[in-house]
Amino acid sequence: MKSEIRDNLFDQAMEWVMSAGANIRNKINDPLEIDTKSNANDLVTTMDKETEYYFATCIRNKYPEHFLLGEEGYGDNITTMKGTVWIIDPIDGTMNFVHQKRNFAISVGIYHEGVGEIGFIYDVMADVLYHAKRNEGAYKNNVKLPHLKEDLNLEESIIGLNHFWLCTNRLVDEKIMQDLVRTVRGTRTYGSAALEFAHVAEGIMDGYLTMRLAPWDIAAGLILVKEVGGITSNIDGDQINILEAGSVVTCNTSIQSKLLDYLQKGRK
Amino acid sequence: MKSEIRDNLFDQAMEWVMSAGANIRNKINDPLEIDTKSNANDLVTTMDKETEYYFATCIRNKYPEHFLLGEEGYGDNITTMKGTVWIIDPIDGTMNFVHQKRNFAISVGIYHEGVGEIGFIYDVMADVLYHAKRNEGAYKNNVKLPHLKEDLNLEESIIGLNHFWLCTNRLVDEKIMQDLVRTVRGTRTYGSAALEFAHVAEGIMDGYLTMRLAPWDIAAGLILVKEVGGITSNIDGDQINILEAGSVVTCNTSIQSKLLDYLQKGRK
Repeated sequence: MKSEIRDNLFDQAMEWVMSAGANIRNKINDPLEIDTKSNANDLVTTMDKETEYYFATCIRNKYPEHFLLGEEGYGDNITTMKGTVWIIDPIDGTMNFVHQKRNFAISVGIYHEGVGEIGFIYDVMADVLYHAKRNEGAYKNNVKLPHLKEDLNLEESIIGLNHFWLCTNRLVDEKIMQDLVRTVRGTRTYGSAALEFAHVAEGIMDGYLTMRLAPWDIAAGLILVKEVGGITSNIDGDQINILEAGSVVTCNTSIQSKLLDYLQKGRK
Repeated sequence: MKSEIRDNLFDQAMEWVMSAGANIRNKINDPLEIDTKSNANDLVTTMDKETEYYFATCIRNKYPEHFLLGEEGYGDNITTMKGTVWIIDPIDGTMNFVHQKRNFAISVGIYHEGVGEIGFIYDVMADVLYHAKRNEGAYKNNVKLPHLKEDLNLEESIIGLNHFWLCTNRLVDEKIMQDLVRTVRGTRTYGSAALEFAHVAEGIMDGYLTMRLAPWDIAAGLILVKEVGGITSNIDGDQINILEAGSVVTCNTSIQSKLLDYLQKGRK
């Protein structure tokens, strides 16, 4: 993607992200209509839908040749990453949005011919914007994030993972995950994949493991983490296929092999 | 404690809390000397010590008849809660302080003849002060927190707990904890007991379980949670002895019995 085109696209996308965030903040105390999706704890609200609809309308008006992959159904049915594709989660961390009225994010990744060019993760209530452009670094509120620490030990790492990794599950023996929990310095669970990617990019967590994420959960995060020298794969160490839902391990590169060793040791 | 005495004490304590917090913020990017205590992940820094020393000096100068129970060794060796006792954690969430430079708190509880009168939990980097006075409610940045939701179901609750509850442990069968994780709506781990108490008081988490906490981790939180109608016990449902370290379950009162049922079912 040409630099000038990308810069214009970046400015426009940022304007929409900030505007969508301001709208959510304005309505944060309004009554919510809450539905469930795949299960009773997979929440979706009118605000998720309204926000994705806003992006879909903006994108279709200004960039009718672009594609949109979104969580809430206003996007296109795409099967390839040809052309320019926006991948959007209007509210990542809907449970936090509903129960906490904070700790959720708007996630927007823009890909061109399959390559992640622009990523935004906007922590709406904290008004903190993480962004990245490919090969130009990652930023938090326009301050460049440093390259992740080198020679980090797993024993000194803080890892984000939810508690289901420690329950009987279809991917990994939970006993091995207990060993991992006892090995690392600390574990955290925040409930927003996009923000957890941002935390890895910021170096305040050193890794984040998740059993199943969809494209919109990770599209922006992948770009941010890469720009600070971090690395992302599935639990088998394979490259992520952005169009498929699956397991994700994003981390400081220096702990990746040890982290994947644990997961492989317990792999079912 | 007489109301006028308590009001003066409250004002003075708040001034010291805010001042200690400002000092930490000013020095947040200074190089840290980090030691470990009970194990390699039990961190303590010069800033923990400096902050507790500040409180100890202030209290001894102004209130020489008061007692101080603190984490870092500048307090008194007390064996009863007679008189007025300050219970202070200068930095609750030291791992977050070191690794994240946020998500930690100053916790100050003031007890008189064993009764919690005043509590402060100060989220230093977010500059958010939670406070409570007995029978006068709990506040977040001077806005009164509402009474916790009534008739809450465990199935709709968000519970804070660390991942060690899901590892083989001396207190509870981890298989039963897996059932609990699958039953509730969501689980979170933030790494600061004081802030997790504050989150329960705020109603953005509905419960928080921890295997072993010391007086300074909970002294302020107990007061806050009580003021919004929440309840705190150990995992056997017994009242907390503030002078002893032990397990803690703090939660919305309407889910307490079900939560304790899980813990008792798995109790070793």
